Amino acid sequence: MIRLYELCGQDRNRRFSPYVWRTRLALHHKGLAYESVPVRFVEKDAFAESGSKTVPVIQEDGRWVADSWRIACYLEDHYPDRPSLFGGATGRAHARFINAWTDRTLVLGLFPLLAARIWTLLDPESQAYFRESREARLGMTLEEAGRDREAKLKALRRALSPLEATLKAQDFLGGTAPSYADYIVAGPLIWAAITGDFDPLDPESAVARWRGRIFSLYDGLVASAVAAATDTS
Amino acid sequence: MIRLYELCGQDRNRRFSPYVWRTRLALHHKGLAYESVPVRFVEKDAFAESGSKTVPVIQEDGRWVADSWRIACYLEDHYPDRPSLFGGATGRAHARFINAWTDRTLVLGLFPLLAARIWTLLDPESQAYFRESREARLGMTLEEAGRDREAKLKALRRALSPLEATLKAQDFLGGTAPSYADYIVAGPLIWAAITGDFDPLDPESAVARWRGRIFSLYDGLVASAVAAATDTS
Repeated sequence: MIRLYELCGQDRNRRFSPYVWRTRLALHHKGLAYESVPVRFVEKDAFAESGSKTVPVIQEDGRWVADSWRIACYLEDHYPDRPSLFGGATGRAHARFINAWTDRTLVLGLFPLLAARIWTLLDPESQAYFRESREARLGMTLEEAGRDREAKLKALRRALSPLEATLKAQDFLGGTAPSYADYIVAGPLIWAAITGDFDPLDPESAVARWRGRIFSLYDGLVASAVAAATDTS
Repeated sequence: MIRLYELCGQDRNRRFSPYVWRTRLALHHKGLAYESVPVRFVEKDAFAESGSKTVPVIQEDGRWVADSWRIACYLEDHYPDRPSLFGGATGRAHARFINAWTDRTLVLGLFPLLAARIWTLLDPESQAYFRESREARLGMTLEEAGRDREAKLKALRRALSPLEATLKAQDFLGGTAPSYADYIVAGPLIWAAITGDFDPLDPESAVARWRGRIFSLYDGLVASAVAAATDTS
C-alpha cells in the first residue's frame, strides 16, 4: 500500500496542500489504494528519510518519491497498465509546461490571498514557523499580503485567460476526459476552496464549470473535502 | 500537392506571419510537399473561397482549411501514418492550452514592438490597410505602440518563465523531439526574427538555446529564412 505524506492543519482532517491534491487525484486516477499520513508544518521529520522538506512524499515498498511532478511520473511509469495520466511521452512533455505555468501563475497569484487564512488553520507551533518563513518570502506580513484582494483577483482572473479559452473548447485539459494536467490546475483551486473565504474564479467562467466537473470526480472526492472544510471553518 | 496561402511583405519572399510559420513547420514535420502562395494584406481575395479572412489557409484536393490550429488537427487526422504532431489525443488537448497561452502572451506581447517595423516591410496599399486596422486595435499609432521597448521586453521575458523552466528540463516542448507545441511557440519568435530589429529573448536563456535548435530543423529552414530577411532589411 502506498503511503501519502501530506500537510494538515491543526485539524488533521484539513488537508490543503495544492501539490498534495495533484498527487491524491493522480492516485485515484490510477485506481491505487493509499494510506494518508497527515503531517503538520513542524512535523516534517515524519518523511525526513525521503530527503525532501516538502510534501507530497510517497512511500511504497521502502522506496520514497518526493515532488508532485516526480510522483506523477513515477506512478505513470510504475503502473503503465492503469489509466494513463499523460497519454504518452508527448502528453507528458506538454503537461510539464502546464505544470510550470500553473505554479507561476495560479499558485503564486493565490498565495498572498490565502496566506493569512492558512495561518489561522494551523496549530500554534506551525503558526510560528509559517509566519516567519512566509513573511520572509513575501517581504511583508501575511495580513499585508492579502490587501487589495479585488485588484489582485482581477489580475489573476485575467492571467487565467489561456485556461478559459482552452476549457471553452474542450471539457478537460486532457480533452474529453481528465489527465494529470487537470489535476495540476485543480490543485491550487482546491487549496483555495479549502482554506480561503473567497472564490478566485468568475462563477460564470468556463474554468468554474470545469472546476465543478473536477470536484465531482471519484465520487465527489474533492467536493466532500471542501464541504467538510467549510463546515468546520 | 497542398497549397499554403501565406502573408508576405512588399518583397514576396518575406513571409512573416507567426501563424503561417506554425503551419509550415507542421508540414515539414509531416514530410508533406506544399506549394506556397504569398499573399499581401490587400490580396486576401486569393483565398476568399475558404471563408477565412486570415492566413494560414491551406487547399488540398479542392478542400480548404483555415486557422493554424485547425490545420494542424487536419494534417494530424489526414496523415496519421506520418510523424505525429501531437503524440495522441491527450498530447493534442494539452497543446491547445499551449496554443492559447502563446497567443495571449507571446503574440500579444510582441505585436506592439513589431508593428511599426512590419509596416515598413509592406507594399503601399497594404501599409494603409495595416496602419488603419492595427492602430484601431492598439488604440494608438504603430510608433507609439513601440515605445518603452526595454520595459515591455522585460515584462515579456518575465512572462516567459514557464517556458524557461520547461526548456531547462527538456530539449523540446514535445520532450526529446519537437512536437506541434514547439511550432506553436516558435511561430511568434520567427515573426520577430524576420521583422524585428531586436531580440525578444535573453540570449543566455534556455528558451534562446531551444530557439537555436528549432531554427536548425529541416535543413535550417527557419535559419535560412531569417538570414535572407536580415540580408535584405
